[in-house]
Amino acid sequence: MQANKLRLLHESLRRYLRRDARAHLLKLVEKTRDEELAAAMSSMVVEEQLSIFSCLTTYARQAHVITLMAEPFGQIILSPLTPTDAARILREMAPDDMADILADLSTDHAAAILGSLEESEEVEDLMRYADDTAGGIMIPEYLALQSDDTVENAQERLREAGDVEMVYYVYVVNTHGHLVGVLSLRKLVTALPGTRVSEVMSTDVISVTPETDQEEVASLVARYSFLSIPVVDDSNKLLGLVTVDDVIDVLRDEATEDILKMAGAGEDLTDTHGVRGNVQIRFPWLLASSIGGLLGAGVMSLFAETIQTHEALAFFLPVILGMSGNVGTQSATIIVRALAVGRISLVGGNWSIIRREVLVGLIMGTLYGILVGLVAWAVAGSPYYGLTVGLAFVAGMIIASGVGASLPIVLSRIGFDPAVATGPLVTTAVDILGIAAYFGIAAGLLRAFGL
Amino acid sequence: MQANKLRLLHESLRRYLRRDARAHLLKLVEKTRDEELAAAMSSMVVEEQLSIFSCLTTYARQAHVITLMAEPFGQIILSPLTPTDAARILREMAPDDMADILADLSTDHAAAILGSLEESEEVEDLMRYADDTAGGIMIPEYLALQSDDTVENAQERLREAGDVEMVYYVYVVNTHGHLVGVLSLRKLVTALPGTRVSEVMSTDVISVTPETDQEEVASLVARYSFLSIPVVDDSNKLLGLVTVDDVIDVLRDEATEDILKMAGAGEDLTDTHGVRGNVQIRFPWLLASSIGGLLGAGVMSLFAETIQTHEALAFFLPVILGMSGNVGTQSATIIVRALAVGRISLVGGNWSIIRREVLVGLIMGTLYGILVGLVAWAVAGSPYYGLTVGLAFVAGMIIASGVGASLPIVLSRIGFDPAVATGPLVTTAVDILGIAAYFGIAAGLLRAFGL
Repeated sequence: MQANKLRLLHESLRRYLRRDARAHLLKLVEKTRDEELAAAMSSMVVEEQLSIFSCLTTYARQAHVITLMAEPFGQIILSPLTPTDAARILREMAPDDMADILADLSTDHAAAILGSLEESEEVEDLMRYADDTAGGIMIPEYLALQSDDTVENAQERLREAGDVEMVYYVYVVNTHGHLVGVLSLRKLVTALPGTRVSEVMSTDVISVTPETDQEEVASLVARYSFLSIPVVDDSNKLLGLVTVDDVIDVLRDEATEDILKMAGAGEDLTDTHGVRGNVQIRFPWLLASSIGGLLGAGVMSLFAETIQTHEALAFFLPVILGMSGNVGTQSATIIVRALAVGRISLVGGNWSIIRREVLVGLIMGTLYGILVGLVAWAVAGSPYYGLTVGLAFVAGMIIASGVGASLPIVLSRIGFDPAVATGPLVTTAVDILGIAAYFGIAAGLLRAFGL
Repeated sequence: MQANKLRLLHESLRRYLRRDARAHLLKLVEKTRDEELAAAMSSMVVEEQLSIFSCLTTYARQAHVITLMAEPFGQIILSPLTPTDAARILREMAPDDMADILADLSTDHAAAILGSLEESEEVEDLMRYADDTAGGIMIPEYLALQSDDTVENAQERLREAGDVEMVYYVYVVNTHGHLVGVLSLRKLVTALPGTRVSEVMSTDVISVTPETDQEEVASLVARYSFLSIPVVDDSNKLLGLVTVDDVIDVLRDEATEDILKMAGAGEDLTDTHGVRGNVQIRFPWLLASSIGGLLGAGVMSLFAETIQTHEALAFFLPVILGMSGNVGTQSATIIVRALAVGRISLVGGNWSIIRREVLVGLIMGTLYGILVGLVAWAVAGSPYYGLTVGLAFVAGMIIASGVGASLPIVLSRIGFDPAVATGPLVTTAVDILGIAAYFGIAAGLLRAFGL
């Protein structure tokens, strides 16, 4: 239902753009929610995005749509504006979003804009933290209660703060600003008026520091089903909070990052948007693959004589390497994902996992080895060929599943992200080892059989 | 910090288990949060999980830990229990979790347990919905306000309901139980006591039906930064709500599913836990790959003569197929993910994306074609070999990026999940086409050069 609605919106927007029907466009944009507009705009080209954006008539809507769009949309919109005009839009954003977008602008332009913003100090503080840390995604906390407040006072303060978005827990600090407790809004509403905040709050608060990696923040929020998590400095002073909606964005981005990384295709869909970025990001991983491939060619050349005599052997090389590569990638994918969601821990024995994968490789290798071996027998007209190809197949699959399972674990143990280019690295390693095993076994066996 | 804490917990639990130090284990479990316990248990074997679970001394904690663990943990725990004992634990769960676990038990056992539960009707209703729909993850709504209630009344009702978890919005229904509005808890708290609920509520409510796919539910909650979304039937009657913490689980599971599917390794890490499940799930995708590979062998056999005369050609086949496979997988991965997060829409021209990928393939093919071509020249001692290998390389990379980019789009257009086995399908298609292109070009060129 919603998907259809979105498709309809997308089509209408495009039709009006094509026809240059500005009046219709203005009317449609007027009555559409910002979130839907941004969703429809995401899959358009920049020119279309700009035309639609220009139909937004208030700074608040402009600001909201910018925060909903992926980078570098904010940069594209704000770069050509004067500092005063840019500040008019930015003023409508939450401080963390402001900081993110300012960090993407040129230093001079950002400084000039900051000059015209009231919250400049707060935003500058936030800009100090890296994008992918708790500090980079937190909003500054402005509504912390004092532990000796009464519930009545607390409710009054809440009322004064007005309808601020995104507050579900209220954090409690002592007179030094140190975090001492947390209270759900619901508990605050249902507590008896006379009680003190310290009596109803929970003191067992899980917090992070501004430097905590956003992935860890997200996994804590997910594990405890939190709606927000407080950010404190080393002395436990409350600095801000990360809300669950930002955590959802982090989880999506991290999943995208893992998926792209595994294929050696960068970390971010934006980077692969143009042809140039695409080539730059994917080139290096293919370099590893090409060097590996040439090494494989070198290995093959050692068996030139065998290939010349038994050219049918070469026919079955692609199927062995292709399937070994697939099995290795399957193993690696399972391990990478299990590590990412905590279903495998690096504590203690990982041997059992590698053993399991190798066993799977052995079984698959045997099943498919028989199939491919029979075909080889039929094609080459000799059972020896069949046996050779079949055995090489088993070896290839065992090697592949072993390499596929161990590589992510090894990468992870030596401090690398196990997802990094698992795909190209595994298939390349499998290619070299597979070629050596195949022709090694073939040359040995055929000689033994006197062929 | 948290990661270290978890590692420490994991190590301590294992040490006590090894030493059979039950008293220590009881003490440690007693003082550890359920979420941390479940996180540490996730990466353990079933026997260890059961020993730790047996240290949980209350039904409430047992119920909580079961809901935190991945399937089939609940089934393992509850299957051997009598219906009465099982009901004691289940009673402590939210109805949606109850329904999920009962659905995994044998029909007789589930019916017997339902007999001893008070909420059996509610749970049976929930069990009707598929696991991966809004109905399968919703909790029944029990706190809907009437639109003509006063804010005072509403607050009173909230207080009476006690400290129920996971309510951040209150939904408003008319006298027929039809959904007419939504109100944030915060707005309810800060509204003046005399006002009517209908005056402060928002009437623009986005809802889903019980049949809505959980992936669409998650993407709506993510898009609008909701904390919960209401589930209504066809007549707009409010049935329940899906909360953001369940949405986070859905997003994680869907990312896992996409990642595993792309490699042809199933949909769920649990399925790949044992050797047997692993083989069963991965076998069919490899079958496609093996048939493709044998077709490739067939294609190669057409060029048997060329290979016999120019055996060095075979040396470069693995590097061409390997790199083409990698480029194709990169293209496919980028497209699959862009489709999943809505950065590409299937509306209108997808030709520009395919064109971009093919252009990337052309550039990569040219760059690496020169490199590999030069090596081939050096190895085979003839510039013609270099030219042949280089040109075949360009062809292979163009084919690979074209296939990699179009396959997910085509799958998606004909109604399949674009992630399904993209990896094996792309590499297999690339293998067959790559072999044909390589030897086709080689045979033609070498003949033309009179070699």
